[in-house]
Amino acid sequence: MHDEFTKIEWLKKRFEKGTVPSREVIVGIGDDAAVIDFGSRPTIVTVDTHVEDVHFRRELISCRELGRRAVIAAASDVWAMASTPSGALVALTFPDAFTDPDFRELIEGIAEASELTGARIIGGNLSRGRSLSITTTVFGLPAEEAVTRDGARPGDRIYVTGELGAAALGLAILEAGASDLEHAESFVSRWRRPPVHGQIVRELAQSATAAVDISDGCLQDLQHVCVASSVGAVIEASDIPMARGHRENCAALGFDPFELALTGGEDYELLFTAPPDAEVQIPATPIGTIIEGSEVRVLDSEGQPIEFGQTGYRHFS
Amino acid sequence: MHDEFTKIEWLKKRFEKGTVPSREVIVGIGDDAAVIDFGSRPTIVTVDTHVEDVHFRRELISCRELGRRAVIAAASDVWAMASTPSGALVALTFPDAFTDPDFRELIEGIAEASELTGARIIGGNLSRGRSLSITTTVFGLPAEEAVTRDGARPGDRIYVTGELGAAALGLAILEAGASDLEHAESFVSRWRRPPVHGQIVRELAQSATAAVDISDGCLQDLQHVCVASSVGAVIEASDIPMARGHRENCAALGFDPFELALTGGEDYELLFTAPPDAEVQIPATPIGTIIEGSEVRVLDSEGQPIEFGQTGYRHFS
Repeated sequence: MHDEFTKIEWLKKRFEKGTVPSREVIVGIGDDAAVIDFGSRPTIVTVDTHVEDVHFRRELISCRELGRRAVIAAASDVWAMASTPSGALVALTFPDAFTDPDFRELIEGIAEASELTGARIIGGNLSRGRSLSITTTVFGLPAEEAVTRDGARPGDRIYVTGELGAAALGLAILEAGASDLEHAESFVSRWRRPPVHGQIVRELAQSATAAVDISDGCLQDLQHVCVASSVGAVIEASDIPMARGHRENCAALGFDPFELALTGGEDYELLFTAPPDAEVQIPATPIGTIIEGSEVRVLDSEGQPIEFGQTGYRHFS
Repeated sequence: MHDEFTKIEWLKKRFEKGTVPSREVIVGIGDDAAVIDFGSRPTIVTVDTHVEDVHFRRELISCRELGRRAVIAAASDVWAMASTPSGALVALTFPDAFTDPDFRELIEGIAEASELTGARIIGGNLSRGRSLSITTTVFGLPAEEAVTRDGARPGDRIYVTGELGAAALGLAILEAGASDLEHAESFVSRWRRPPVHGQIVRELAQSATAAVDISDGCLQDLQHVCVASSVGAVIEASDIPMARGHRENCAALGFDPFELALTGGEDYELLFTAPPDAEVQIPATPIGTIIEGSEVRVLDSEGQPIEFGQTGYRHFS
């Protein structure tokens, strides 16, 4: 399967078999471009790149999980717009040493993510290069109106889905070789297998005034919402949802549990704001309030501000 | 401008200024995803990657030309569907040594291509990595119905726009350091600055039964059409359009002029088929005929078959 065209033929067959509905796809893999019918609704489009030794190290994740993760991370931006992924293009760059079994596993992971997100793989590109790299373009359709970052208003409550810092802790556990820690596997899995948010898209469209996915770290992504909305925010540290074992494992590895929860990247949970009187039907935790101004503050249980050395996520290299 | 968010802010401003109409863009650069309104027509989507030391060497092309070229090469797939580019997402991966002036020049080239193709830059992604890499997703709208690869029928005439092998010859001149050859600059420019086909899209939609862009080399791309259409083809070598100086420069560098014209990649000209009675209004050269079967043959002026050692384009590494 070393020939590019052999690979494309295999991919064409592989993704024809998918159970994701194809009614919108007029021309799929194998022509110059795909042709899709989005209907008459506005369409969501986003692109995300995962590069070896920047976003992942090969020895820390299997090819299957890598493929799955790359597509879900890209789909995460579509969910954060209160929209449903419908199609994806995957551009792969791989080194000569990347084997056929590696390639097949990567594609199986992509196929798994395609099923989980509902984004049908409609095209892509194959290229050689020095490092493995996956660039995913995802299209989607808003459940109602797309929720952007600029709608947060003073008084809105700030919510997050899931638990924060778990992915960063999982990665730290892998890097430290600390798999004997309690709940280690659960944290590692949070990093390797980001969450799927398809179920809450409609509720998000109904409740949220602004939304963002947490890829750079909660504080930094909240900052993006605040800048776009021209508002400030106050976070109550004691309200931050943290996974079982988070504090203990942070202590074992020398992290501040709040700092890791608020600045650790790649959770791919969603952060959104909603008016104080909104009935939020989404399983999510309120962690603070939007205020006037431009400052983003974190308060401890005494109401005193906490300062962190780092507000966002840093990549490997 | 070393910070990612500073770059994104700069990009947001840079691409707001564009003269490409924005009525379809509801949310542009700076949110989780872009929101565009394609109307109720089917939409064309394609993705293309250009990787350093695979598709280009930095010392052979300026950053501005590189940016321009990456977007035009991706748009070429949209034109080959008889469609008009309307938007693009650009995912850039660059090494730490990539300077701010390099970055700005790359973006100016992308902006130039955006103007030339009509594809408004509506989003993208920035990432670090070991090699420079540009992945461009282009959207477009068919002029009428999208022209695919599978519509060629026995009896159809085969046409190509422009002149073949000129880009490959330009690259060979650069690699040989043979800039003293006559017309050298014109060939080099064919490689660095691929052609823009926006003007012929409507005529293509009206005349063509199948179309493809010539990126892998004329013979190989024709082969793709033949496989998709379940037909064969006969090419008359003496009808192949070759640029002024092509034969002389091929002789000087040790290439067979026909082989280079038919197998040299990256011309980004269009190959299309049209019924024998079609009035083709496109400036293009008829080079052969679609036949029954599956074989693609090249005949010399005596009607004898010519065999080439290589049917397609090979990348650098």
